[in-house]
Amino acid sequence: MPYFSQTVQHIRSSEIRDLMKLATRPDVISFAGGMPNNDLFPVAEVDDIILNMEPDIKKVAFQYGPTSGYPPLLETLKEYLKSKGLPVETHNLMITTGSLQAINILGMEFIDPGDLVLTENPSFIGGIAVFKAFQANIKGVPLQHDGLDLDILAQILETEQPKMLYVIPNFHNPAGIIYSKEKRIKLLELLKGKNILLLEDDAYNELYFSEKSKELTTPLMAMNHDDVTMVYTGSFSKILGPGFRLGWMLAPPDIYEKAQIIKQGIDACSPNFTQVIANEFIKKGYLEQYLNRIRKEYAERKNLMQEALKKHMPEDVKWTEPGGGFYFWLKLPEGIDATEILKDSIDKGAVFVTGKTFDPEGQRNNYFRLAFSNMDKKDIDKGICIIADAIKYQVTSSKFQVTS
Amino acid sequence: MPYFSQTVQHIRSSEIRDLMKLATRPDVISFAGGMPNNDLFPVAEVDDIILNMEPDIKKVAFQYGPTSGYPPLLETLKEYLKSKGLPVETHNLMITTGSLQAINILGMEFIDPGDLVLTENPSFIGGIAVFKAFQANIKGVPLQHDGLDLDILAQILETEQPKMLYVIPNFHNPAGIIYSKEKRIKLLELLKGKNILLLEDDAYNELYFSEKSKELTTPLMAMNHDDVTMVYTGSFSKILGPGFRLGWMLAPPDIYEKAQIIKQGIDACSPNFTQVIANEFIKKGYLEQYLNRIRKEYAERKNLMQEALKKHMPEDVKWTEPGGGFYFWLKLPEGIDATEILKDSIDKGAVFVTGKTFDPEGQRNNYFRLAFSNMDKKDIDKGICIIADAIKYQVTSSKFQVTS
Repeated sequence: MPYFSQTVQHIRSSEIRDLMKLATRPDVISFAGGMPNNDLFPVAEVDDIILNMEPDIKKVAFQYGPTSGYPPLLETLKEYLKSKGLPVETHNLMITTGSLQAINILGMEFIDPGDLVLTENPSFIGGIAVFKAFQANIKGVPLQHDGLDLDILAQILETEQPKMLYVIPNFHNPAGIIYSKEKRIKLLELLKGKNILLLEDDAYNELYFSEKSKELTTPLMAMNHDDVTMVYTGSFSKILGPGFRLGWMLAPPDIYEKAQIIKQGIDACSPNFTQVIANEFIKKGYLEQYLNRIRKEYAERKNLMQEALKKHMPEDVKWTEPGGGFYFWLKLPEGIDATEILKDSIDKGAVFVTGKTFDPEGQRNNYFRLAFSNMDKKDIDKGICIIADAIKYQVTSSKFQVTS
Repeated sequence: MPYFSQTVQHIRSSEIRDLMKLATRPDVISFAGGMPNNDLFPVAEVDDIILNMEPDIKKVAFQYGPTSGYPPLLETLKEYLKSKGLPVETHNLMITTGSLQAINILGMEFIDPGDLVLTENPSFIGGIAVFKAFQANIKGVPLQHDGLDLDILAQILETEQPKMLYVIPNFHNPAGIIYSKEKRIKLLELLKGKNILLLEDDAYNELYFSEKSKELTTPLMAMNHDDVTMVYTGSFSKILGPGFRLGWMLAPPDIYEKAQIIKQGIDACSPNFTQVIANEFIKKGYLEQYLNRIRKEYAERKNLMQEALKKHMPEDVKWTEPGGGFYFWLKLPEGIDATEILKDSIDKGAVFVTGKTFDPEGQRNNYFRLAFSNMDKKDIDKGICIIADAIKYQVTSSKFQVTS
């Protein structure tokens, strides 16, 4: 067999994939997958859309489409993004197969082997995997309760020239936090004139649990006055369904132009079949109705988990209650390793993702992520109890080891 | 703005993209796009599938799926590929977003900058674009009426070590030819023990116009006895609809394993929404019915074009009548450039793709491709007449220049 390329040396299977297999076992309560709830999808609305679709649009759904996306969807989506203050007049919009593809395209467009890419620490596994595949030198900047640690970022920028900074300001995956308005403003000021691409991943923008959280969700790109080179990505995965494989990228014309050529070579175009449905989903007003429904549902799930955590977790396990999104991010007591907790929990029937999975350097493992989006609500308390017991057991054992 | 990566230096927008824009103008007869006919899609069958889908499967359609594909579709597709003699027991199947993504994944898996990749000359534009993006050194091996020129291939193999050979043995895009059985056997013999990945792109396998052509379509992979390392790709684009963005890759386990990790990082999974439909489309027997319908239709279109070409083309324009697929590949008289013909034809209202687009070295331009798949049948004669007139005009002008 011919030998593999250099790229293959820089990719690896993530722990997540194995967890996903566990997560589908009916006897395991899964807090692992960052996926929407199967029972919440807008099935009736999409049935209605397909039943009432014009014959000519149905034909278009079967055909190749423009690389940048199905034109009516681009128009509808532009209106929607405009309402968030995003600069749809001066920037170009492109539909991608999930926002992960958008990150990939930007990786191909900007990253040469060895280039420095900054991410938050922790960060989205998919983003980290992309930057690794393009052989970037990845450095994680610590995330605080209100956003990036800007002192550390400023220090790095004094001596180094990163190619890109990748951030998830709203309802962070995995950290669950949202950036404060102050941090957003300061971050943009800090990057001004620095020749770094700021990549804003806003997959969870719509999933706020209160008006107070909603006010904070204004995208960085909507606050930027062209002082910082930015690309904004979003996704239909959380607001319609990941099975549609639709996301988007809003980019300045020169970045968009190259991105379009790259996408042409990667897969020619995104699926027209799901794009025509997504277009009608927004146009018919179903999106707004659906968001109201799932915000309530996910808020309820968050509350159930918050209660269960307060009830079961030992005092020295710490977390911030999320204002939106899918995740709790928990800090373990000193000296306790999340992988040990995971092993115990799996045996007892609960699964989650360990912290080091989200660390760009793959080291820090005194955190773990719990997703509350996709399990039976009645299982939340039981599952949290299993994990809490595993922690208590480890804490006791480690104290015993210290004193003995 | 931060500077672009090296990769961006190796990609370019193809002429095709601009032609596609022209091709959608109602006043232009387009022989350019290699796309199925809008009026032939199995719209009624897919409506029926969606109407009668089980509620639980509908939910799955909205969700993320395994990276390798929707498991029931993998099973159904394996049965289908097994009937073509393909080694589905010893190889692994993966669903991709079109077969173009499969080629991309293999590019990422095997090609380092400077690696030698062999293609047919002419070859599929999408394949050439992928190999260029991965900075391969691409060499085209001439295509004859019955397959690759094996003498030239043997010469190359004597002195060089290519990483990959990319071929389209059935109803070639753009050349319209099909490999003879003899050539297939000899090609496999020639590659035996040579440590080259043979990539077989079989997107047009089902589109034969006669039983005689059908007999020739046995895939190379079905004739290979594991002497040659092979990957086989196919597509739903021509047998269901490109808007589904579904293709597949059948690969040995070690190549599949890395491919799966690469795909996980690229877009996590292919669209479940279209995969559940594709599965029912095969299972319910709609695929076979549909293929019978479109084979007749495309054969009729091929016949109309063959008649029009015989009627209008000057004697020194040469072509081989295709036994399947979408394309005629025409050779121009000595000294005539396809781009000049294209310019004239566009002015008069007909468009096609010039030969150099399909030449990996972007040079040879005394050929052009006519697709007969997607225009009004009544326009075929008129469009061919326009192109023939443009050729006659150029031939006359060039003779005039020579003699004057």
